Amino acid sequence: MRASRASATRELILTAAERLFAEHGVFAVSNRQVSEAAEQGNNTAVGYHFGTKADLVRAIARKHSVQIEEIRQRMVAEAGADADLRAWLACLIRPTTEHLADLGNPTWYGRFAAQVTTDPTLRQIMYEESRSSPSLVRISAAINGLLPDMPDEVRAERRDMSRLLIVHMVAERERALADGTPTPRSSWQDTADGMIDALAGLWLAPVSTR
Amino acid sequence: MRASRASATRELILTAAERLFAEHGVFAVSNRQVSEAAEQGNNTAVGYHFGTKADLVRAIARKHSVQIEEIRQRMVAEAGADADLRAWLACLIRPTTEHLADLGNPTWYGRFAAQVTTDPTLRQIMYEESRSSPSLVRISAAINGLLPDMPDEVRAERRDMSRLLIVHMVAERERALADGTPTPRSSWQDTADGMIDALAGLWLAPVSTR
Repeated sequence: MRASRASATRELILTAAERLFAEHGVFAVSNRQVSEAAEQGNNTAVGYHFGTKADLVRAIARKHSVQIEEIRQRMVAEAGADADLRAWLACLIRPTTEHLADLGNPTWYGRFAAQVTTDPTLRQIMYEESRSSPSLVRISAAINGLLPDMPDEVRAERRDMSRLLIVHMVAERERALADGTPTPRSSWQDTADGMIDALAGLWLAPVSTR
Repeated sequence: MRASRASATRELILTAAERLFAEHGVFAVSNRQVSEAAEQGNNTAVGYHFGTKADLVRAIARKHSVQIEEIRQRMVAEAGADADLRAWLACLIRPTTEHLADLGNPTWYGRFAAQVTTDPTLRQIMYEESRSSPSLVRISAAINGLLPDMPDEVRAERRDMSRLLIVHMVAERERALADGTPTPRSSWQDTADGMIDALAGLWLAPVSTR
Protein backbone atom coordinates (compact mmCIF):
# COMPACT_ATOMS: atom_id res chain seq x y z
CA MET A 1 0.00 0.00 0.00
CA ARG A 2 2.74 2.41 1.00
CA ALA A 3 4.84 1.23 -1.94
CA SER A 4 2.06 1.87 -4.40
CA ARG A 5 1.47 5.37 -3.01
CA ALA A 6 5.17 6.13 -3.39
CA SER A 7 5.03 4.84 -6.94
CA ALA A 8 2.02 7.07 -7.72
CA THR A 9 3.86 10.07 -6.26
CA ARG A 10 6.91 9.32 -8.39
CA GLU A 11 4.71 9.19 -11.48
CA LEU A 12 3.10 12.55 -10.63
CA ILE A 13 6.54 14.09 -10.20
CA LEU A 14 7.84 12.63 -13.47
CA THR A 15 4.88 14.02 -15.41
CA ALA A 16 5.05 17.47 -13.79
CA ALA A 17 8.82 17.67 -14.33
CA GLU A 18 8.67 16.62 -17.96
CA ARG A 19 6.07 19.27 -18.72
CA LEU A 20 7.86 22.08 -16.88
CA PHE A 21 11.20 21.14 -18.43
CA ALA A 22 9.73 21.07 -21.94
CA GLU A 23 7.96 24.40 -21.54
CA HIS A 24 10.48 26.41 -19.51
CA GLY A 25 13.82 24.62 -19.81
CA VAL A 26 15.45 21.87 -17.76
CA PHE A 27 17.67 24.27 -15.82
CA ALA A 28 15.24 27.16 -15.58
CA VAL A 29 12.96 24.97 -13.42
CA SER A 30 13.92 24.14 -9.82
CA ASN A 31 13.24 20.88 -7.98
CA ARG A 32 11.04 22.92 -5.64
CA GLN A 33 8.89 24.12 -8.57
CA VAL A 34 8.54 20.53 -9.77
CA SER A 35 7.45 19.39 -6.31
CA GLU A 36 4.87 22.18 -6.17
CA ALA A 37 3.53 21.46 -9.67
CA ALA A 38 3.18 17.78 -8.71
CA GLU A 39 1.04 19.01 -5.79
CA GLN A 40 3.36 17.56 -3.21
CA GLY A 41 2.83 19.38 0.09
CA ASN A 42 6.46 18.68 0.82
CA ASN A 43 8.52 20.78 -1.56
CA THR A 44 11.55 18.52 -1.15
CA ALA A 45 9.61 15.63 -2.72
CA VAL A 46 11.87 15.53 -5.81
CA GLY A 47 14.94 15.12 -3.63
CA TYR A 48 13.26 12.44 -1.55
CA HIS A 49 11.95 10.37 -4.47
CA PHE A 50 14.68 10.93 -7.06
CA GLY A 51 17.75 12.70 -5.73
CA THR A 52 19.37 15.34 -7.93
CA LYS A 53 18.15 17.10 -11.07
CA ALA A 54 20.31 14.67 -13.11
CA ASP A 55 18.64 11.67 -11.40
CA LEU A 56 15.21 13.07 -12.21
CA VAL A 57 16.22 13.68 -15.83
CA ARG A 58 17.50 10.11 -16.06
CA ALA A 59 14.23 8.72 -14.68
CA ILE A 60 12.20 10.62 -17.30
CA ALA A 61 14.53 9.50 -20.08
CA ARG A 62 14.41 5.88 -18.86
CA LYS A 63 10.61 5.80 -18.68
CA HIS A 64 10.27 6.75 -22.34
CA SER A 65 13.26 4.83 -23.64
CA VAL A 66 11.84 1.59 -22.19
CA GLN A 67 8.57 2.18 -24.07
CA ILE A 68 10.33 3.19 -27.28
CA GLU A 69 12.64 0.17 -27.10
CA GLU A 70 9.60 -2.10 -26.87
CA ILE A 71 8.17 -0.70 -30.12
CA ARG A 72 11.59 -0.85 -31.77
CA GLN A 73 12.15 -4.50 -30.85
CA ARG A 74 8.78 -5.37 -32.37
CA MET A 75 9.63 -3.49 -35.59
CA VAL A 76 13.08 -5.08 -35.83
CA ALA A 77 11.54 -8.53 -35.34
CA GLU A 78 9.12 -7.78 -38.18
CA ALA A 79 11.83 -6.54 -40.57
CA GLY A 80 12.45 -9.49 -42.88
CA ALA A 81 15.72 -10.66 -44.39
CA ASP A 82 14.94 -8.59 -47.49
CA ALA A 83 14.42 -5.32 -45.56
CA ASP A 84 15.96 -2.42 -47.50
CA LEU A 85 17.48 0.86 -46.34
CA ARG A 86 14.10 2.59 -46.05
CA ALA A 87 12.74 -0.28 -43.96
CA TRP A 88 15.66 0.01 -41.53
CA LEU A 89 15.33 3.79 -41.42
CA ALA A 90 11.69 3.20 -40.50
CA CYS A 91 12.89 1.02 -37.60
CA LEU A 92 15.12 3.89 -36.51
CA ILE A 93 12.51 6.65 -36.76
CA ARG A 94 9.02 5.21 -36.25
CA PRO A 95 9.42 3.91 -32.68
CA THR A 96 9.77 7.51 -31.46
CA THR A 97 7.01 8.99 -33.62
CA GLU A 98 4.67 6.09 -32.84
CA HIS A 99 5.35 6.49 -29.12
CA LEU A 100 4.48 10.20 -29.29
CA ALA A 101 1.39 9.49 -31.37
CA ASP A 102 0.31 6.91 -28.75
CA LEU A 103 0.73 9.46 -25.94
CA GLY A 104 -1.57 11.91 -27.72
CA ASN A 105 -1.21 15.69 -27.92
CA PRO A 106 0.19 17.43 -25.91
CA THR A 107 3.46 15.59 -25.40
CA TRP A 108 6.57 16.98 -23.74
CA TYR A 109 9.15 14.26 -24.23
CA GLY A 110 10.35 15.52 -27.63
CA ARG A 111 11.34 18.95 -26.30
CA PHE A 112 12.75 17.42 -23.15
CA ALA A 113 14.95 14.97 -25.13
CA ALA A 114 16.26 17.71 -27.45
CA GLN A 115 17.32 19.87 -24.50
CA VAL A 116 18.97 17.00 -22.65
CA THR A 117 20.83 15.92 -25.82
CA THR A 118 22.20 19.47 -26.21
CA ASP A 119 23.11 20.18 -22.60
CA PRO A 120 26.85 19.89 -21.81
CA THR A 121 26.31 18.08 -18.50
CA LEU A 122 23.13 16.05 -19.13
CA ARG A 123 23.77 14.79 -22.68
CA GLN A 124 25.65 11.77 -21.37
CA ILE A 125 22.38 10.47 -19.92
CA MET A 126 20.72 10.25 -23.34
CA TYR A 127 23.73 8.48 -24.84
CA GLU A 128 23.78 5.91 -22.07
CA GLU A 129 20.09 5.19 -22.67
CA SER A 130 20.61 4.60 -26.39
CA ARG A 131 23.91 2.74 -26.09
CA SER A 132 22.16 0.12 -23.98
CA SER A 133 19.54 -0.56 -26.69
CA PRO A 134 20.14 -3.92 -28.43
CA SER A 135 17.68 -3.05 -31.21
CA LEU A 136 19.53 0.19 -32.06
CA VAL A 137 22.77 -1.74 -32.42
CA ARG A 138 21.01 -4.19 -34.76
CA ILE A 139 19.53 -1.36 -36.88
CA SER A 140 22.84 0.46 -37.10
CA ALA A 141 24.59 -2.69 -38.35
CA ALA A 142 21.85 -3.36 -40.90
CA ILE A 143 22.01 0.20 -42.29
CA ASN A 144 25.76 -0.05 -42.46
CA GLY A 145 25.52 -3.23 -44.54
CA LEU A 146 23.23 -1.58 -47.08
CA LEU A 147 25.33 1.50 -47.81
CA PRO A 148 27.50 2.01 -50.86
CA ASP A 149 31.22 2.03 -50.28
CA MET A 150 32.29 5.07 -48.23
CA PRO A 151 34.94 5.89 -45.63
CA ASP A 152 34.18 4.84 -42.04
CA GLU A 153 34.48 8.48 -40.94
CA VAL A 154 31.67 9.45 -43.30
CA ARG A 155 29.51 6.64 -41.92
CA ALA A 156 30.17 7.91 -38.39
CA GLU A 157 29.39 11.45 -39.47
CA ARG A 158 26.10 10.48 -41.11
CA ARG A 159 25.15 8.42 -38.06
CA ASP A 160 25.56 11.58 -35.97
CA MET A 161 23.56 13.57 -38.51
CA SER A 162 20.69 11.05 -38.44
CA ARG A 163 20.55 11.00 -34.65
CA LEU A 164 20.57 14.79 -34.33
CA LEU A 165 18.10 15.30 -37.16
CA ILE A 166 15.56 12.91 -35.64
CA VAL A 167 15.74 14.24 -32.08
CA HIS A 168 15.53 17.90 -33.12
CA MET A 169 12.87 17.51 -35.83
CA VAL A 170 10.67 15.62 -33.36
CA ALA A 171 11.10 18.48 -30.87
CA GLU A 172 10.25 21.08 -33.54
CA ARG A 173 7.01 19.35 -34.42
CA GLU A 174 6.03 18.84 -30.81
CA ARG A 175 6.64 22.52 -30.09
CA ALA A 176 4.62 23.61 -33.12
CA LEU A 177 1.73 21.38 -31.99
CA ALA A 178 1.93 22.83 -28.48
CA ASP A 179 2.05 26.43 -29.78
CA GLY A 180 -0.65 25.84 -32.40
CA THR A 181 1.67 26.99 -35.21
CA PRO A 182 1.64 25.28 -38.64
CA THR A 183 3.47 21.95 -39.08
CA PRO A 184 4.76 20.67 -42.43
CA ARG A 185 3.01 17.32 -41.84
CA SER A 186 -0.41 16.51 -40.48
CA SER A 187 0.48 13.44 -38.38
CA TRP A 188 3.40 11.80 -36.61
CA GLN A 189 3.21 9.01 -39.17
CA ASP A 190 3.64 11.46 -42.06
CA THR A 191 6.44 13.18 -40.15
CA ALA A 192 8.25 9.85 -40.03
CA ASP A 193 7.71 9.46 -43.81
CA GLY A 194 9.37 12.83 -44.37
CA MET A 195 12.36 11.87 -42.23
CA ILE A 196 12.73 8.49 -43.96
CA ASP A 197 12.81 10.20 -47.38
CA ALA A 198 15.32 12.80 -46.24
CA LEU A 199 17.61 10.40 -44.39
CA ALA A 200 17.62 7.94 -47.29
CA GLY A 201 18.88 10.82 -49.45
CA LEU A 202 21.41 11.85 -46.84
CA TRP A 203 22.84 8.34 -46.32
CA LEU A 204 23.08 7.56 -50.05
CA ALA A 205 24.51 10.94 -51.07
CA PRO A 206 27.75 10.67 -53.09
CA VAL A 207 30.86 11.47 -51.07
CA SER A 208 33.05 14.08 -52.70
CA THR A 209 36.80 13.96 -52.32
CA ARG A 210 39.28 16.82 -52.40
CA MET B 1 38.52 56.93 -22.31
CA ARG B 2 35.70 55.85 -20.04
CA ALA B 3 33.76 54.61 -23.07
CA SER B 4 36.62 52.45 -24.27
CA ARG B 5 37.08 50.94 -20.82
CA ALA B 6 33.39 50.07 -20.70
CA SER B 7 33.70 48.52 -24.13
CA ALA B 8 36.70 46.42 -23.03
CA THR B 9 34.75 45.28 -19.95
CA ARG B 10 31.79 44.29 -22.11
CA GLU B 11 34.11 42.25 -24.32
CA LEU B 12 35.64 40.46 -21.30
CA ILE B 13 32.16 39.61 -20.05
CA LEU B 14 31.00 38.33 -23.47
CA THR B 15 34.01 36.04 -23.75
CA ALA B 16 33.73 34.71 -20.19
CA ALA B 17 29.99 34.11 -20.58
CA GLU B 18 30.29 32.34 -23.91
CA ARG B 19 32.86 29.95 -22.51
CA LEU B 20 30.98 29.20 -19.28
CA PHE B 21 27.70 28.73 -21.17
CA ALA B 22 29.33 26.35 -23.66
CA GLU B 23 31.01 24.27 -20.98
CA HIS B 24 28.38 24.21 -18.23
CA GLY B 25 25.08 25.24 -19.80
CA VAL B 26 23.42 28.62 -20.33
CA PHE B 27 21.10 28.21 -17.35
CA ALA B 28 23.49 26.36 -15.06
CA VAL B 29 25.70 29.48 -14.96
CA SER B 30 24.62 32.57 -13.02
CA ASN B 31 25.28 36.20 -13.97
CA ARG B 32 27.35 36.41 -10.78
CA GLN B 33 29.59 33.54 -11.95
CA VAL B 34 30.04 35.27 -15.32
CA SER B 35 31.03 38.52 -13.58
CA GLU B 36 33.55 36.67 -11.45
CA ALA B 37 35.04 34.76 -14.40
CA ALA B 38 35.41 38.06 -16.27
CA GLU B 39 37.40 39.27 -13.24
CA GLN B 40 35.03 42.08 -12.50
CA GLY B 41 35.41 43.09 -8.84
CA ASN B 42 31.75 44.04 -8.95
CA ASN B 43 29.74 40.84 -9.26
CA THR B 44 26.72 42.69 -10.66
CA ALA B 45 28.79 43.68 -13.74
CA VAL B 46 26.64 41.56 -16.09
CA GLY B 47 23.50 43.32 -14.96
CA TYR B 48 25.13 46.73 -15.27
CA HIS B 49 26.58 46.18 -18.76
CA PHE B 50 23.95 43.93 -20.33
CA GLY B 51 20.82 43.55 -18.24
CA THR B 52 19.24 40.10 -18.03
CA LYS B 53 20.55 36.68 -19.00
CA ALA B 54 18.52 36.94 -22.22
CA ASP B 55 20.14 40.31 -23.04
CA LEU B 56 23.58 38.80 -22.50
CA VAL B 57 22.71 35.81 -24.71
CA ARG B 58 21.49 38.19 -27.42
CA ALA B 59 24.72 40.20 -27.28
CA ILE B 60 26.83 37.05 -27.74
CA ALA B 61 24.62 35.86 -30.61
CA ARG B 62 24.76 39.30 -32.25
CA LYS B 63 28.54 39.56 -32.04
CA HIS B 64 28.99 36.32 -33.97
CA SER B 65 26.11 36.73 -36.36
CA VAL B 66 27.49 40.09 -37.55
CA GLN B 67 30.82 38.41 -38.34
CA ILE B 68 29.18 35.39 -40.01
CA GLU B 69 26.90 37.65 -42.07
CA GLU B 70 29.96 39.49 -43.40
CA ILE B 71 31.50 36.24 -44.66
CA ARG B 72 28.15 35.13 -46.06
CA GLN B 73 27.61 38.37 -47.99
CA ARG B 74 31.04 37.99 -49.56
CA MET B 75 30.29 34.39 -50.58
CA VAL B 76 26.88 35.30 -51.98
CA ALA B 77 28.45 38.14 -53.99
CA GLU B 78 30.96 35.66 -55.41
CA ALA B 79 28.33 33.07 -56.33
CA GLY B 80 27.87 33.52 -60.08
CA ALA B 81 24.66 33.25 -62.10
CA ASP B 82 25.53 29.61 -62.82
CA ALA B 83 25.92 28.64 -59.14
CA ASP B 84 24.40 25.20 -58.58
CA LEU B 85 22.79 23.64 -55.51
CA ARG B 86 26.13 22.65 -53.96
CA ALA B 87 27.46 26.17 -54.42
CA TRP B 88 24.45 27.63 -52.61
CA LEU B 89 24.72 25.02 -49.87
CA ALA B 90 28.33 26.13 -49.48
CA CYS B 91 27.06 29.70 -48.97
CA LEU B 92 24.74 28.36 -46.28
CA ILE B 93 27.31 26.26 -44.43
CA ARG B 94 30.80 27.70 -44.94
CA PRO B 95 30.30 31.11 -43.32
CA THR B 96 29.84 29.40 -39.94
CA THR B 97 32.65 26.86 -40.35
CA GLU B 98 35.01 29.52 -41.73
CA HIS B 99 34.18 31.84 -38.82
CA LEU B 100 35.00 29.08 -36.32
CA ALA B 101 38.20 28.18 -38.18
CA ASP B 102 39.19 31.89 -38.07
CA LEU B 103 38.63 32.02 -34.30
CA GLY B 104 40.95 29.05 -33.77
CA ASN B 105 40.55 26.21 -31.28
CA PRO B 106 39.04 26.34 -28.68
CA THR B 107 35.79 27.97 -29.73
CA TRP B 108 32.58 28.07 -27.69
CA TYR B 109 30.08 29.63 -30.03
CA GLY B 110 28.98 26.35 -31.63
CA ARG B 111 27.89 24.80 -28.33
CA PHE B 112 26.39 28.08 -27.20
CA ALA B 113 24.31 28.40 -30.39
CA ALA B 114 23.04 24.81 -30.19
CA GLN B 115 21.84 25.31 -26.62
CA VAL B 116 20.17 28.62 -27.36
CA THR B 117 18.44 27.16 -30.45
CA THR B 118 17.02 24.33 -28.30
CA ASP B 119 15.98 26.34 -25.26
CA PRO B 120 12.23 27.03 -25.03
CA THR B 121 12.65 30.65 -23.93
CA LEU B 122 15.88 31.70 -25.67
CA ARG B 123 15.41 30.11 -29.09
CA GLN B 124 13.52 33.15 -30.35
CA ILE B 125 16.76 35.15 -30.10
CA MET B 126 18.55 32.94 -32.63
CA TYR B 127 15.62 33.11 -35.04
CA GLU B 128 15.52 36.88 -34.87
CA GLU B 129 19.23 37.03 -35.66
CA SER B 130 18.86 34.83 -38.75
CA ARG B 131 15.59 36.32 -39.97
CA SER B 132 17.27 39.71 -40.23
CA SER B 133 20.00 38.35 -42.53
CA PRO B 134 19.55 39.54 -46.16
CA SER B 135 22.09 37.00 -47.43
CA LEU B 136 20.22 34.07 -45.86
CA VAL B 137 17.03 35.16 -47.59
CA ARG B 138 18.90 35.28 -50.90
CA ILE B 139 20.43 31.79 -50.38
CA SER B 140 17.11 30.30 -49.40
CA ALA B 141 15.44 31.64 -52.55
CA ALA B 142 18.29 30.37 -54.73
CA ILE B 143 18.14 26.86 -53.25
CA ASN B 144 14.39 26.86 -53.69
CA GLY B 145 14.76 27.69 -57.38
CA LEU B 146 17.11 24.77 -57.97
CA LEU B 147 14.99 22.03 -56.41
CA PRO B 148 12.94 19.48 -58.31
CA ASP B 149 9.18 19.81 -58.02
CA MET B 150 8.01 19.08 -54.46
CA PRO B 151 5.25 20.27 -52.14
CA ASP B 152 5.88 23.54 -50.28
CA GLU B 153 5.49 21.69 -46.96
CA VAL B 154 8.37 19.38 -47.86
CA ARG B 155 10.51 22.40 -48.77
CA ALA B 156 9.72 23.95 -45.38
CA GLU B 157 10.47 20.67 -43.64
CA ARG B 158 13.83 20.26 -45.37
CA ARG B 159 14.70 23.88 -44.60
CA ASP B 160 14.16 23.09 -40.91
CA MET B 161 16.23 19.92 -41.26
CA SER B 162 19.14 21.82 -42.86
CA ARG B 163 19.12 24.50 -40.20
CA LEU B 164 19.05 22.02 -37.32
CA LEU B 165 21.62 19.71 -38.87
CA ILE B 166 24.13 22.53 -39.37
CA VAL B 167 23.80 24.06 -35.90
CA HIS B 168 23.99 20.72 -34.08
CA MET B 169 26.75 19.14 -36.19
CA VAL B 170 28.88 22.24 -35.67
CA ALA B 171 28.33 21.96 -31.91
CA GLU B 172 29.23 18.23 -31.96
CA ARG B 173 32.52 18.90 -33.68
CA GLU B 174 33.38 21.82 -31.43
CA ARG B 175 32.70 19.68 -28.36
CA ALA B 176 34.82 16.81 -29.68
CA LEU B 177 37.69 19.24 -30.33
CA ALA B 178 37.35 20.65 -26.81
CA ASP B 179 37.21 17.18 -25.24
CA GLY B 180 40.00 15.80 -27.40
CA THR B 181 37.78 12.97 -28.71
CA PRO B 182 37.96 11.80 -32.35
CA THR B 183 36.20 13.84 -35.05
CA PRO B 184 35.07 12.40 -38.40
CA ARG B 185 36.85 15.24 -40.25
CA SER B 186 40.23 16.82 -39.71
CA SER B 187 39.30 20.46 -40.40
CA TRP B 188 36.33 22.82 -40.39
CA GLN B 189 36.66 23.04 -44.17
CA ASP B 190 36.29 19.25 -44.53
CA THR B 191 33.42 19.32 -42.06
CA ALA B 192 31.65 21.75 -44.37
CA ASP B 193 32.33 19.40 -47.33
CA GLY B 194 30.63 16.57 -45.42
CA MET B 195 27.58 18.70 -44.69
CA ILE B 196 27.33 19.91 -48.29
CA ASP B 197 27.36 16.29 -49.55
CA ALA B 198 24.77 15.20 -47.00
CA LEU B 199 22.44 18.17 -47.45
CA ALA B 200 22.58 17.90 -51.24
CA GLY B 201 21.35 14.31 -50.84
CA LEU B 202 18.71 15.37 -48.33
CA TRP B 203 17.32 18.22 -50.47
CA LEU B 204 17.24 16.16 -53.67
CA ALA B 205 15.78 13.00 -52.10
CA PRO B 206 12.63 11.73 -53.84
CA VAL B 207 9.43 12.53 -51.96
CA SER B 208 7.26 9.49 -51.37
CA THR B 209 3.50 9.79 -51.30
CA ARG B 210 1.01 7.64 -49.47
